[in-house]
Amino acid sequence: MKKTVSRLADGRQIIYFDEDDDAVRELVDLRDLPPAMTRSEVRYDPLLDEWVVLASHRQGRTHLPPAAECPLCPSNGDRLSEIPSADYDVVIIENRFPSLGAATDAPPPADLLDGLCARGPGTGRCEVVCFTSDHGSSFAELPRQRVRTVMDAWADRTTELGALDDVEYVFVFENRGPEIGVTLHHPHGQIYAYPFVPPRARQVLDSARRYRDRTSRNLFADLLAGEQRAGDRVVGRSQHWTAFVPAAARWPVEVHVYPHRQVPDLDALTGPERDDFAGLYLDVLRRCDALFGQPLPYVAAWHQAPVHADRDLAYLHLELFSVRRAPGKLKYLAGSESGMGAFIGDMLPEDTARRLREALEVRT
Amino acid sequence: MKKTVSRLADGRQIIYFDEDDDAVRELVDLRDLPPAMTRSEVRYDPLLDEWVVLASHRQGRTHLPPAAECPLCPSNGDRLSEIPSADYDVVIIENRFPSLGAATDAPPPADLLDGLCARGPGTGRCEVVCFTSDHGSSFAELPRQRVRTVMDAWADRTTELGALDDVEYVFVFENRGPEIGVTLHHPHGQIYAYPFVPPRARQVLDSARRYRDRTSRNLFADLLAGEQRAGDRVVGRSQHWTAFVPAAARWPVEVHVYPHRQVPDLDALTGPERDDFAGLYLDVLRRCDALFGQPLPYVAAWHQAPVHADRDLAYLHLELFSVRRAPGKLKYLAGSESGMGAFIGDMLPEDTARRLREALEVRT
Repeated sequence: MKKTVSRLADGRQIIYFDEDDDAVRELVDLRDLPPAMTRSEVRYDPLLDEWVVLASHRQGRTHLPPAAECPLCPSNGDRLSEIPSADYDVVIIENRFPSLGAATDAPPPADLLDGLCARGPGTGRCEVVCFTSDHGSSFAELPRQRVRTVMDAWADRTTELGALDDVEYVFVFENRGPEIGVTLHHPHGQIYAYPFVPPRARQVLDSARRYRDRTSRNLFADLLAGEQRAGDRVVGRSQHWTAFVPAAARWPVEVHVYPHRQVPDLDALTGPERDDFAGLYLDVLRRCDALFGQPLPYVAAWHQAPVHADRDLAYLHLELFSVRRAPGKLKYLAGSESGMGAFIGDMLPEDTARRLREALEVRT
Repeated sequence: MKKTVSRLADGRQIIYFDEDDDAVRELVDLRDLPPAMTRSEVRYDPLLDEWVVLASHRQGRTHLPPAAECPLCPSNGDRLSEIPSADYDVVIIENRFPSLGAATDAPPPADLLDGLCARGPGTGRCEVVCFTSDHGSSFAELPRQRVRTVMDAWADRTTELGALDDVEYVFVFENRGPEIGVTLHHPHGQIYAYPFVPPRARQVLDSARRYRDRTSRNLFADLLAGEQRAGDRVVGRSQHWTAFVPAAARWPVEVHVYPHRQVPDLDALTGPERDDFAGLYLDVLRRCDALFGQPLPYVAAWHQAPVHADRDLAYLHLELFSVRRAPGKLKYLAGSESGMGAFIGDMLPEDTARRLREALEVRT
């Protein structure tokens, strides 16, 4: 794999990851772009004991442009996109409308409410990961080799972004589908480098710490072993990975994919583990799209170890979930879920797993 | 106020709350209904240390029926709705498709995954609160006296449901608008009586406990005092209540309404406090609808004390929030929010509060 780093016209970084070691990419962005502006801050919510990001400069961001104006397609003659080259395999750019980034404004005052609500600049970084130059494709349609290239790019960014000042957590994820607010159709994922350990990762690690204190064992490893033994929620299994619907699933479709070996993050995966993931994950995604006979909107979220804390406790895994509960019907988060955090599931996890296992069967 | 209790044809309870002490309501439901079926269970998620409800019988629930078939309108001649009477002020019925309720199936086995994932029957109760017989109205359009009647009904249910076996938390809320999945247009709210303290309530009370241990003070009272002193996030204030946008707001529109006196739940409010809430809350709701010049979809969630735990720590308040970030634009929960619990706000709370304060100004 060949990695090529350059800068866009407004100073943002662009990084090509090419499968061909001889690939030559265009390094000059001919557009006349105003400097990227970031005005993010983080505030501490004393009620939930969590940080919240306020990115008030993002309201004008690009929203579902027509395919001919897609900023993530390669540049083509006079049509200059975010990607100066005429083609690419995998390319990563800094987000033009980032939620987090080095502040361009003066930092906000240090706190609000007489110290109850701390605040600070929204440092960090947001990157966009283009999986393919083919606008009409999807992750599920990538060749296995491309998935491997994407994983190599994710691993590279995990380590590089984790080395930046103020970054405490590197979150690699894909939002797929307009049903969950995706604003660009081109197949892409994102990476958020947060200046804090995000609430859900922290909550899970707190559980794992209490479990280790009580049992001297790893919670994630025991959960995986339990699901493998039970079997009725397993969707697929390969040499190095197992995919299952969690026993206490929150979403109508939810699949977790665990490696069989405890590693802290994507960069710690071996080559064979990365190749093997590609096969299993592509199979899971195809089952997801077959489930309701239409592309499944989903979030696919990599849980990695924080940059500095709890690296021994964490267990890299992917959590994929969807708001689709039936063809044409979505699960909405309303009072119980978004007001009280109490999820009401419509489907038994065992039934979801069975339907995913049967989803690619040829109907006769 | 006159309270009248009866049963629907399938055994569910119906309770009228009438402003006229002489009101006479129809107590016999002439429909031929099959018995209500509940097949809920709760499962413990060991990763997030939270209970999840699985209600797999609800997929067939009523979804946006035409107005002529509204089940929450009064019955009219041959058209028999859920409400047997020809009119009502406020009426509460047990939900026909409840997420929680006395199980009609055999209880599930006690656990999964060798004890890692406890499970149990989804006991509890779900009620529907009809605010008015006027199908085309909304909470914001209720007369002040009706809001008082609704509050009296909420207080009644808080105490009665809290006295049921297995109920640990009574959650009173309104989901408003198809944008968040509301399946019936008729103005109504809901009450969930959970067999556990829901995650968000527990999380907030944990913060309040740590704060008290550290400072001997009440976190909610100090937050309210801080917002009143700062003033720039206050939306409105009456004799007994203050409405403000929280300093670390998560949603594009978010307003919290606190009483000036620490009380555990709705039933502990005095008559003058209830009347006074009506005036301030109606004003807040009208500002919310004026903000984008269209009815605001929202969740309005009452945070009460749990039934048995932490009644001295809790501080009754209402949290109203909306996914509307601009006319025609919604905030979606995607990777950062639903995958990692890290909210990215688009608007500064101070700006939201100012816009709400100015929303009812006459433009010249």
